[in-house]
Amino acid sequence: MTLRLTDSQYGKAESRVVRITRDTPRHEITDLNVTTALRGDFSAAYLVGDQSDVLPTDTQKNTAFAYAKEVGISSIEAYGLALARHFVDDVGPVQAARIEIEQYAWDRVVVDGVEHDHTWVRSGAEVRTAAVTVESDEAGQRAHVVAGLKDLVVLKSTGSEFHGFLTDPYTTLQETTDRVMATSLVAQWRMSSTDVDWDATYAGVKAILLREFATVHSLALQQTLWHMGTAVLEAFEDIAEIRLTAPNKHHFLVDLSPFGLENPGEVFIAADRPYGLIEATIARDGAPDAGSAWRPSGGVA
Amino acid sequence: MTLRLTDSQYGKAESRVVRITRDTPRHEITDLNVTTALRGDFSAAYLVGDQSDVLPTDTQKNTAFAYAKEVGISSIEAYGLALARHFVDDVGPVQAARIEIEQYAWDRVVVDGVEHDHTWVRSGAEVRTAAVTVESDEAGQRAHVVAGLKDLVVLKSTGSEFHGFLTDPYTTLQETTDRVMATSLVAQWRMSSTDVDWDATYAGVKAILLREFATVHSLALQQTLWHMGTAVLEAFEDIAEIRLTAPNKHHFLVDLSPFGLENPGEVFIAADRPYGLIEATIARDGAPDAGSAWRPSGGVA
Amino acid sequence: MTLRLTDSQYGKAESRVVRITRDTPRHEITDLNVTTALRGDFSAAYLVGDQSDVLPTDTQKNTAFAYAKEVGISSIEAYGLALARHFVDDVGPVQAARIEIEQYAWDRVVVDGVEHDHTWVRSGAEVRTAAVTVESDEAGQRAHVVAGLKDLVVLKSTGSEFHGFLTDPYTTLQETTDRVMATSLVAQWRMSSTDVDWDATYAGVKAILLREFATVHSLALQQTLWHMGTAVLEAFEDIAEIRLTAPNKHHFLVDLSPFGLENPGEVFIAADRPYGLIEATIARDGAPDAGSAWRPSGGVA
Amino acid sequence: MTLRLTDSQYGKAESRVVRITRDTPRHEITDLNVTTALRGDFSAAYLVGDQSDVLPTDTQKNTAFAYAKEVGISSIEAYGLALARHFVDDVGPVQAARIEIEQYAWDRVVVDGVEHDHTWVRSGAEVRTAAVTVESDEAGQRAHVVAGLKDLVVLKSTGSEFHGFLTDPYTTLQETTDRVMATSLVAQWRMSSTDVDWDATYAGVKAILLREFATVHSLALQQTLWHMGTAVLEAFEDIAEIRLTAPNKHHFLVDLSPFGLENPGEVFIAADRPYGLIEATIARDGAPDAGSAWRPSGGVA
Repeated sequence: MTLRLTDSQYGKAESRVVRITRDTPRHEITDLNVTTALRGDFSAAYLVGDQSDVLPTDTQKNTAFAYAKEVGISSIEAYGLALARHFVDDVGPVQAARIEIEQYAWDRVVVDGVEHDHTWVRSGAEVRTAAVTVESDEAGQRAHVVAGLKDLVVLKSTGSEFHGFLTDPYTTLQETTDRVMATSLVAQWRMSSTDVDWDATYAGVKAILLREFATVHSLALQQTLWHMGTAVLEAFEDIAEIRLTAPNKHHFLVDLSPFGLENPGEVFIAADRPYGLIEATIARDGAPDAGSAWRPSGGVA
Repeated sequence: MTLRLTDSQYGKAESRVVRITRDTPRHEITDLNVTTALRGDFSAAYLVGDQSDVLPTDTQKNTAFAYAKEVGISSIEAYGLALARHFVDDVGPVQAARIEIEQYAWDRVVVDGVEHDHTWVRSGAEVRTAAVTVESDEAGQRAHVVAGLKDLVVLKSTGSEFHGFLTDPYTTLQETTDRVMATSLVAQWRMSSTDVDWDATYAGVKAILLREFATVHSLALQQTLWHMGTAVLEAFEDIAEIRLTAPNKHHFLVDLSPFGLENPGEVFIAADRPYGLIEATIARDGAPDAGSAWRPSGGVA
Repeated sequence: MTLRLTDSQYGKAESRVVRITRDTPRHEITDLNVTTALRGDFSAAYLVGDQSDVLPTDTQKNTAFAYAKEVGISSIEAYGLALARHFVDDVGPVQAARIEIEQYAWDRVVVDGVEHDHTWVRSGAEVRTAAVTVESDEAGQRAHVVAGLKDLVVLKSTGSEFHGFLTDPYTTLQETTDRVMATSLVAQWRMSSTDVDWDATYAGVKAILLREFATVHSLALQQTLWHMGTAVLEAFEDIAEIRLTAPNKHHFLVDLSPFGLENPGEVFIAADRPYGLIEATIARDGAPDAGSAWRPSGGVA
Repeated sequence: MTLRLTDSQYGKAESRVVRITRDTPRHEITDLNVTTALRGDFSAAYLVGDQSDVLPTDTQKNTAFAYAKEVGISSIEAYGLALARHFVDDVGPVQAARIEIEQYAWDRVVVDGVEHDHTWVRSGAEVRTAAVTVESDEAGQRAHVVAGLKDLVVLKSTGSEFHGFLTDPYTTLQETTDRVMATSLVAQWRMSSTDVDWDATYAGVKAILLREFATVHSLALQQTLWHMGTAVLEAFEDIAEIRLTAPNKHHFLVDLSPFGLENPGEVFIAADRPYGLIEATIARDGAPDAGSAWRPSGGVA
């Protein structure tokens, strides 16, 4: 019997990097959760405990904080690229680096109609994300950027139907031509370039996702996802592929008839579990190869 | 040895009531988490399992949903008062009712510059709260409303000092004249009336809390809380008392000197635990008695 | 209009103190979450930002770690008493101190039938708690200990009924003579002494709570709580009072009849929200005064 | 530009199935969280909202509950296989089904030394998991079972070193020859057969994982993972592959020297974030192909 280490990676998860830019009295804040992972031949550490090729996870954390100063954070994508390239270029044994970043948004506090220079309040639930992979081999170095968002919680109170579905002996669901549709969207779009206006792309994609959710008369969450994804790909030439994951956050109409009340789509109970879970990946024909763009830093997939 | 049931209450926690108003094509959404608790002499249920005085928690839940239709939800305070009065007035054994409500805010999705009629996105982290108590005895019926908010996460990147503190042999903290100050504020204000413009009061209090946090040059979080609380009481005559709880969400300056970098208040690590926890209650002289206004519905205090 | 600071406290929440005892090759582990709060006249800090009476929360944290070494942790109650007395005795402005502790249990890993000397696995969900208050005034110093547990998740699959309850027009619940009853118990018992075998008392109380939950044929969760509480007070003379909080974690029988299946109490769906919430406080006649034993360290009650 | 739906799946997540076996007075409990996902050509639902091939997620949920009665739950692996095969065999458009299950453990309450017939208390933090995939194509039908566990929290107070690591200009970590090592282990092992004694395998793998964590003198968490994984593969011929994910839950030695105290490995602070994250996959040479065994039901990987 021969056993082999067929895969591995290691890194530092969830460094909470907060960067204040204070070159002028009007400060700026960037609030991140940064995870780094290194890939390569680290088998000596696994097999015999030899750390000579292992850059400590503590060093990876230090680098994330140092780069917040040295390089700055013009966008999470650019900062992630800088970090990933550093690990691959400057740390010998590293063959690939994966940087995953969450960004939390802050709004300026407004006092008497004027935005305050150095005080903010945390804004909406949505989190901006980036997953950057730089991999290097004999064929050269390739960089992949998957930009995205999560926790974008949206709801529409009408304009959503669900009927004509397949039934079997376990089916009891009633058809409906008017229901509440809600989700907490996860979207990730893979760029075919790294020469991108990251903030403009983010704002544009988010606006399209919201627009399609609002305006598509939905026959199913699946259909809504298709419209969201294709609209994004149509608008941004340099997006190769988009993945959408949407829990169907059920809002059940409450039966008020025992109390002599009608309920024409007015009172709902928001359910926790179980929930539907719908996924779609939509790609452009001829998009560049994904390489390890989608391989996560952690967790067992 | 004599043992007695010295206190009790029972209820239904966390009914997720979602109310859509659809009288016109422009829908409105109200998204609540409702907890009810009833108080009175329910000792027969405890001592001998006799339920004849016990209105089931399931009924309390049904009532919360039915009232969302019958009474509507002009504000969480008004809806809570209606529910509490119903239980005290209409359910014989109930001597007092406590209704606690959380409200989650939604913003309309904007499509091509126009607010959408029936689609929303969940807005900021802040949750609006109300805790309504109606109690009845020989002296009559009294209603208490404690309005509030929680999860209002604010941060200022300068304008905060901390020095001149008491030291003892266990003190290692360095003094600072410039630090990041951040908190996730809980504020609860007790009204001396129930004849209130609830939405206007909520908006006004929140604006004052933000303004004071932003504009007070802080020598300690304690001082900031005092300014927040007194400013609210000065602005709203019908607020009797305000309670503020503020975790000091520490942002530690990262030592970048090992890497040859200066860090003049630019790169911080946001810490999770432990955190400071500062509380203050500020009251108006001569405010009406609180009765059981502050007694929570659940949990062991 | 006169505004006053009517109440305040401040402290350090959630210091994660882990103490290893390694005097012999067989190590011991104590794993705690420690919160401290100080009370007294700290109004200068609030009103004018004068910190000269304020022992920093950072110092409180340091003290918690230092005492884990200096005093040791024979039990969380004894350790909490030592910390609280230190703050009141040794830090001038402090009039009262509140120490709240959670303890996480670990079991030794068993290898080939033998308990390992220095390796453990986290055991059950239950968390042991202590809330110690030492208060000092002209009448002298008083210490209060509230021992307890939380997250004790129990379930019985029969031996639980619920019927004969009060009904009103909003009642739709059906009566049942056999249901699943489950809760995640919070229990807190106030001691009338500080001269206690803390570990033995904890083990004894927990065993009684479990025994009563199992063996009482329940007509309501209220009745079960009464039996639990009185049995504890009957067994331990030095427990003055016990508070029990029990969410009714509903397990609904699934209707399998559409699929031609019977379901005689076999298949349930465990619901998340809403849930019943039942509370009881049971006290011994003539128990010593509670003082501020029940006042929590943080949060707005 | 041509856009295509390159991947999709949909299902019902987190059905909380609780099964009581009550054929004798000594009841048994099985407590599960069940997620199902279906794969195949559902493009009509996405592209044009045609649901005629879509078995509702509500039906998937119903089936999970019905099968808990019809088929029973001898183990989560067997129950998952039955569900997956049903969807592939009996629901026309389904080409593959993924069933993911978490099982929560309960211990019988012991009263006066005797195990109670129908009362349990939730036991440790560890969750047993299964991920079953059945896929069908022209080549026939294949079933994959990945058994596993998560939230197995272990700690050793000595027997762990970390030194000799690679350093760079961002490295500040000190070497250590004695530290606390702790993790919350996720392990998933892919079976090469479906004819397995599932419960015995689970118990055996868990015992080996604990034994190796305890007894390997560790030079790095990587090395410990390698020993855990290879020991499992050596003991179980029908395990093809094992994936281990281990957050390095840092316990930092507290500097007590400012207080005149030594701290020879006795007092630690348990840190929350950031944390190391170490992963390893170890496989047997010649193991059968994994197919889609590792593709998760949800989330964007």
